[in-house]
Amino acid sequence: MVYFDSAATSWPKPPEVWQAMEHFIKEVGASPGRAGHRRTVEANQIVDETRQLLASLFNINDPERIVFTLNATDALNMAIKGLMSQGEHVITSSMEHNSVTRPLHTLESHGVQVTKIKCDRQGKIDLNQVEQAIRPNTRAIVLTHASNVVGTIMPVQDIGRIAAKHNIHFVLDAAQTAGILNIDVKRLNVSVLTFPGHKGLMGPQGTGGLFIREDVNLRTLREGGTGSGSETPTQPNIMPEKYESGTLNAVGIAGLGAGLKFLRRVGKEKIHQHEMGLTNRFIKGAESIGGLRIYGPLKDEERVPVVSFSLEGYKAGQVGDRLDKEFDIGCRAGLHCAPDAHHTLGTFENKLVRFSFSYFNTEAEVDYALKALRQIAAERPVTVLPAGR
Amino acid sequence: MVYFDSAATSWPKPPEVWQAMEHFIKEVGASPGRAGHRRTVEANQIVDETRQLLASLFNINDPERIVFTLNATDALNMAIKGLMSQGEHVITSSMEHNSVTRPLHTLESHGVQVTKIKCDRQGKIDLNQVEQAIRPNTRAIVLTHASNVVGTIMPVQDIGRIAAKHNIHFVLDAAQTAGILNIDVKRLNVSVLTFPGHKGLMGPQGTGGLFIREDVNLRTLREGGTGSGSETPTQPNIMPEKYESGTLNAVGIAGLGAGLKFLRRVGKEKIHQHEMGLTNRFIKGAESIGGLRIYGPLKDEERVPVVSFSLEGYKAGQVGDRLDKEFDIGCRAGLHCAPDAHHTLGTFENKLVRFSFSYFNTEAEVDYALKALRQIAAERPVTVLPAGR
Repeated sequence: MVYFDSAATSWPKPPEVWQAMEHFIKEVGASPGRAGHRRTVEANQIVDETRQLLASLFNINDPERIVFTLNATDALNMAIKGLMSQGEHVITSSMEHNSVTRPLHTLESHGVQVTKIKCDRQGKIDLNQVEQAIRPNTRAIVLTHASNVVGTIMPVQDIGRIAAKHNIHFVLDAAQTAGILNIDVKRLNVSVLTFPGHKGLMGPQGTGGLFIREDVNLRTLREGGTGSGSETPTQPNIMPEKYESGTLNAVGIAGLGAGLKFLRRVGKEKIHQHEMGLTNRFIKGAESIGGLRIYGPLKDEERVPVVSFSLEGYKAGQVGDRLDKEFDIGCRAGLHCAPDAHHTLGTFENKLVRFSFSYFNTEAEVDYALKALRQIAAERPVTVLPAGR
Repeated sequence: MVYFDSAATSWPKPPEVWQAMEHFIKEVGASPGRAGHRRTVEANQIVDETRQLLASLFNINDPERIVFTLNATDALNMAIKGLMSQGEHVITSSMEHNSVTRPLHTLESHGVQVTKIKCDRQGKIDLNQVEQAIRPNTRAIVLTHASNVVGTIMPVQDIGRIAAKHNIHFVLDAAQTAGILNIDVKRLNVSVLTFPGHKGLMGPQGTGGLFIREDVNLRTLREGGTGSGSETPTQPNIMPEKYESGTLNAVGIAGLGAGLKFLRRVGKEKIHQHEMGLTNRFIKGAESIGGLRIYGPLKDEERVPVVSFSLEGYKAGQVGDRLDKEFDIGCRAGLHCAPDAHHTLGTFENKLVRFSFSYFNTEAEVDYALKALRQIAAERPVTVLPAGR
């Protein structure tokens, strides 16, 4: 199969990811932080090493400010619900994934005020609108680093500057950028960074996390056994245990550590260059396909390797189905769990087909997909839907 | 290493567990429920099959009432916080793990009333006290199925009967019993069952879940992308998506499915018989070790294969350290994330050493540990601590 769905979860993983997991499950096995015996010590070391690799990647001083979670959604819920209180105000955008919009929607029913900045048709946010939306009770800006639908990169450096200027928190959702773009939490003035482990960081599913800056105190969403400070009925106020209740997915974290080492060995820049090369090849090749329209910005520096398009005469789902069944190309057609973004782009009705590229995709695969789309476009149903649909 | 820490996480796993994970990560890879292509369909099938195996194990009619979580702690937080509202009352015991006591403690600060039934020195609960604690505003009884410290099995059938009689919910924490004791949610009148995937069910870390009975509606603790019903700002009211936001740990769930098939193939009874055989062998052998005291009930039908003990003249941690360093025996010495239980047993000060046995442990390992303990007991420090400490 040609796999163009790495924005959902990257595949394949580098071989060392599975090797690290296999080693963990066969030779280590124990729960980190849960006893003093040799195996738990080794499990601890593996988890700590992964924390250090993440800290190094994101320019975080203290690895213990990094917390492992089930996935990025879990991390976003912990960040957003842990930070916001009744009567406070939060600013977000119309390009967010449901992992941001839905927790915020829940908070609205608990007296949190939410301002959603409407982005333009390319998914770009207006910094003036962000700054003008700030109120005396504004607590945070919660923003995606790049759209999971059309890849638009947000002006995070400017957002960080605005947040610092007004002394409000900046929660950055790096679901589509961790391991893909440079993220320096200090330079960007990020208060809380949330990330998946299984996309650009090349780890397995079931991994993700968040960085919580030293001056940020989140209420816990989940309490329980922490393996240390066990005497008290309250959660111990030590990092990272405060936010890591229950048994960690240590086998997954072992795999994530191997993914991070792969990133470091091959080089983030080289990987990014390859992925953007494929993105550009696809965009350029698609220009000559009649009825195919690419959404989002076209310039390299304005996007990540996630490309969405429509094909005249088709609903997105029909294209996705044909790509799968006739050409064995796996992509994602639909709303991409981001209905607001599709409303913003004007594609809520017909939806979009999304291709997302990884380091392991090839130019030949892109060319094959272009050929497939050219054929599907040529076979457009006779009864053409009204334009714009 | 002799691994006697399966109550924390079972090890080793049956080979088919990591084989299923290897297959998933190398050949499937995709996120279940996140697109329509072939790989996501296969990922769905694997996750669905695991759900069906769990449903069959726990006598659950509709597998879609089972939700996958990060771990049992995650599931307990979802159950307890999703169920209880301000002004309501909940009954629990003094033998609970911090994964129950800490979420309840958090809820107390939000106006939930908690009654903690004090158990006896063996960890047994008095049913009359439970029934007498019920108030007009009692919403639920939250109880462990068996103590993670001393293995005491709770009278869950009677608790279920009491809950049904008074029309209150029964939340059962099966952390130490899922895959080990028979759990029939109908027979036990369980409203919500929470379970880890990585202990008795033989799956990998990073797996766990909960069953939510048809008449139980939990508020969500985590909202986000669900892969279906993506149009709305509210979480879709469909099972299991309502409670499964973000990318599932599908590779872990694949392993859990293989663990469940192993359980079915070998037979839960055969596994249990083996584990109880080791437990009895240890208890019997320990009788003749001077200064060694076993806590909890001694009868087979009153305990699971988790045994805790003290050794006169030692703090538990000292024994654990010596077992690890001198004898390469991995166990767990300390509070076991259950301070209330240790207060109940009178062991909070000196703590306990816990051995927990799995199907893969052998009689020879038990005999070796008994020999080690005999030696440690004989080498008791000259300055003996006061009795009972």
